[in-house]
Amino acid sequence: MKSALQALLRPASIAVLGASSDPQKLGGRPIRFLQEKQYAGSIYPVNPNRAEIAGLPCYPGVHAIPGAIDLAIVAVPAADTAGAVRALGMKGVPAAIVFSSGFGETGAAGAALEQALEQAAREAGVRVLGPNNLGLINAFERVFATFSQFAAGPAPAGPVGFVTQSGAFGTAIAALARRRGIGLGYFVNTGNECDIRFDEVIGEILDDERIRVVAGYVEGLKDGDGFVRAAEHAMAAGKPLLVTKVGRSAAGARAAASHTGSLAGEDAVFDGIARQFGVVRARNEEHLLDLIEVFSHCALPPLAGGRLGIGIVTQSGGAGVLMADRAEELGLAVPVLSPAIRARLAPVVPGFGATANPVDVTAQFLADPAILRDAVTIMLEDPAVHVGVVWLQLMDAQVDVLLGVFDEIKAAASKPFIVVWVAASDAALAGLRQRGIAVLRGAEPAIDAIGGLAAHAAARARIAAPRAARDPCASLPLTRGGTLSTAEGAQLMAAAGLPFAAFRLAAGRAAALAAGD
Amino acid sequence: MKSALQALLRPASIAVLGASSDPQKLGGRPIRFLQEKQYAGSIYPVNPNRAEIAGLPCYPGVHAIPGAIDLAIVAVPAADTAGAVRALGMKGVPAAIVFSSGFGETGAAGAALEQALEQAAREAGVRVLGPNNLGLINAFERVFATFSQFAAGPAPAGPVGFVTQSGAFGTAIAALARRRGIGLGYFVNTGNECDIRFDEVIGEILDDERIRVVAGYVEGLKDGDGFVRAAEHAMAAGKPLLVTKVGRSAAGARAAASHTGSLAGEDAVFDGIARQFGVVRARNEEHLLDLIEVFSHCALPPLAGGRLGIGIVTQSGGAGVLMADRAEELGLAVPVLSPAIRARLAPVVPGFGATANPVDVTAQFLADPAILRDAVTIMLEDPAVHVGVVWLQLMDAQVDVLLGVFDEIKAAASKPFIVVWVAASDAALAGLRQRGIAVLRGAEPAIDAIGGLAAHAAARARIAAPRAARDPCASLPLTRGGTLSTAEGAQLMAAAGLPFAAFRLAAGRAAALAAGD
Repeated sequence: MKSALQALLRPASIAVLGASSDPQKLGGRPIRFLQEKQYAGSIYPVNPNRAEIAGLPCYPGVHAIPGAIDLAIVAVPAADTAGAVRALGMKGVPAAIVFSSGFGETGAAGAALEQALEQAAREAGVRVLGPNNLGLINAFERVFATFSQFAAGPAPAGPVGFVTQSGAFGTAIAALARRRGIGLGYFVNTGNECDIRFDEVIGEILDDERIRVVAGYVEGLKDGDGFVRAAEHAMAAGKPLLVTKVGRSAAGARAAASHTGSLAGEDAVFDGIARQFGVVRARNEEHLLDLIEVFSHCALPPLAGGRLGIGIVTQSGGAGVLMADRAEELGLAVPVLSPAIRARLAPVVPGFGATANPVDVTAQFLADPAILRDAVTIMLEDPAVHVGVVWLQLMDAQVDVLLGVFDEIKAAASKPFIVVWVAASDAALAGLRQRGIAVLRGAEPAIDAIGGLAAHAAARARIAAPRAARDPCASLPLTRGGTLSTAEGAQLMAAAGLPFAAFRLAAGRAAALAAGD
Repeated sequence: MKSALQALLRPASIAVLGASSDPQKLGGRPIRFLQEKQYAGSIYPVNPNRAEIAGLPCYPGVHAIPGAIDLAIVAVPAADTAGAVRALGMKGVPAAIVFSSGFGETGAAGAALEQALEQAAREAGVRVLGPNNLGLINAFERVFATFSQFAAGPAPAGPVGFVTQSGAFGTAIAALARRRGIGLGYFVNTGNECDIRFDEVIGEILDDERIRVVAGYVEGLKDGDGFVRAAEHAMAAGKPLLVTKVGRSAAGARAAASHTGSLAGEDAVFDGIARQFGVVRARNEEHLLDLIEVFSHCALPPLAGGRLGIGIVTQSGGAGVLMADRAEELGLAVPVLSPAIRARLAPVVPGFGATANPVDVTAQFLADPAILRDAVTIMLEDPAVHVGVVWLQLMDAQVDVLLGVFDEIKAAASKPFIVVWVAASDAALAGLRQRGIAVLRGAEPAIDAIGGLAAHAAARARIAAPRAARDPCASLPLTRGGTLSTAEGAQLMAAAGLPFAAFRLAAGRAAALAAGD
């Protein structure tokens, strides 16, 4: 039998409470989208004042619907949502999405309504997504249970799952993903999270084998342990979990409190947890999309020690400098290539270029595209290089030739690489992405994205290592099981790197006085 | 009479040495561009093997050209450039652009050639731009003295001057500027700077009254004092000078040395000089373009004390949080709005929105655009707000309505504001820019750009202040003229904030011993 979260994300049938025949209204938009996108399951509009909506029979209440219902969309006023959820419970509907606003985000009266909704959900045995959210999309099964304007455009399925606490910002991120040709298999807005939490949705999506990368937008976590479990789940599944969290500062936390009513929490704690459990944190929406794109196309092995080495091939010395700067700031290496590799590059690269790394092929490769191809493939063979970056600009007149060169590079490349193509034409961007090549808009964003690859590769190596190797306390001669003594506790804290006053156990007054000297 | 730099930037006639009838070659491309872009001056191709090129009479050498020549483009092999420049001197040509590569950027032999070129320029009295550069554009007078692929597209004149040491990276930045509808009045690539330096070109462009904003891309300065003079010149002219400098790190400096042969210098010194003299430094090309766009459209008064206050109106609480986070990181304020302003906002903003700042108008403004208009205009009237940010996303179906709203906002706004429109359609971006409104692609870049406005406004206030107010040493009772005593020197250093051991002047042994207690 389906779990409630499975019913939520992959429903065979959907009821719409507060259904409207106006395709612009909250209760009309999801029906329109479900029909336009050819959702294959049953759609049951519910509205006591209508007999038919959008060519479908309309029901006076959920009790009147003949078949079983996996998911209900609730688009009724806030005050009516608790009652609606209780009615869903009586019908045996396992999951509901509550679009309505006017809850915790509006103040005390709204918070009381939210509490009533949460109680109704718990008592009725209905799992609730929301309230104050714009729904979800499962593009694989064409479940467009949303009123988001994002759904009005093409939304092809793809290997990326995206879960967002914010509706408007999440829509913006989804739209930016679409522009990059990133297919979102899932797009889920959790809103106020009176019941179903961010981390639960992440966990469910991780289990879908069609999903390779999971991304999230967070304002505040309701359950820190749940987030840790989601992170461990992602690591075990071998799928990167990429998260943007806002509310880094006091000013941001104040703004967040007035938004979804959530507490931003201590940002440093979130940051530490993310690093510990291999979650890659993005600073903003563009960085998140860069990470999604790079993780979708580049697979690095675990990085067991040392710094990640970046090999750079550029047509601009300046861009090479910028990337080397940024790599150093992030603790990534741009290693000088080995003499053997440089000897092989020397006849390939023009004399006024450079071979040390960054490798500068200058504009000469326009006259002879083999220069670019050979420079990249040779550079990638250097043992100190883990990932390559190729920097290009403009060249609207040479797109076809260059796409052909990248076909050759991809066929010959021994390691992952990404392309930075500044001011690229749409044809260039689409052409590379069709070839499964990540292409970013600037030198610094590319290195920032590679920083994410490096952090994840290091976390995988660390988490895969035996416990003793990664836990400085594991080898301490401590009592196993039962209660630790104060002395052992002090030893443990010091070993974990916590600042702790020196501590020694003394047996008796004289020993204590002696120990104090 | 025209100066050599005036002849370089605004030539009435141009000779092309090494002219080619192949419009793809270095000696052919500028002739093609000058003709296509309808340069109004005379063009003189020079090539001993041709009688005519591109419909123009071709000359065997510069001596054979009948009239006076303001500018020569030199597209001959590196070894022939010094001789060519001496010939230009005999003809009385004041300025030349040397396209050729193969100089200091290639090693010792090239460095010797560059020295010979520099000597020839000095002895012949010809000012030389380059070598190893791709020329310049003065779009006002349609001087396309370049082989840059940027010139192949539309390049309308505008109030921004851009000077770059790197050709390829500079071309990329120019192309990105074009995409934003930013008109570059000047685009100048200085290359190896064997003679004419970056700061000299900046200075000349600052004097053109058609230019309002000057931007630069730097890898390494040949003359620090010259750069300071250019910065002071910009401040005196009331025009912002915006600079990206690469080579922040040791790895970057190594990469730079192999590029244009320049030393990146101590980056912290550059950074300090920039801050002291009110130059706004961009971290990368997108930040530079954001700054150009914001400085082109937003005029702030000098900021004499305290932090710059940002007023934010958003349709996404999350975006508001992200902006507040970034503002706090940069030392900018997102002040809680005054009770009076909040009282006026309360009836305008929906109940589930927010009025404190960020002001969250939610998606309700789509139903009633007056919400957005009134929220922005009221928010800007708060005395603690210096500049506004309006955050929007997507809304492809509402572009016309929103452009109408921004017409009303611009007419009513009491202070500058910028728009962040994530995933905006091209029509939305172009529409706002046509209205003279800066529109950026993301929340964090917008705050970063406002950080530049704030730094410049503070620098203007500081530099305009009487010397005593900005110079803690000015009021010290020091010897004026002549040599300072050691005691005075110590006092001066301490007042300037340098860490310095305590110092007291003691007359005689006893006094010294007493002073030491």
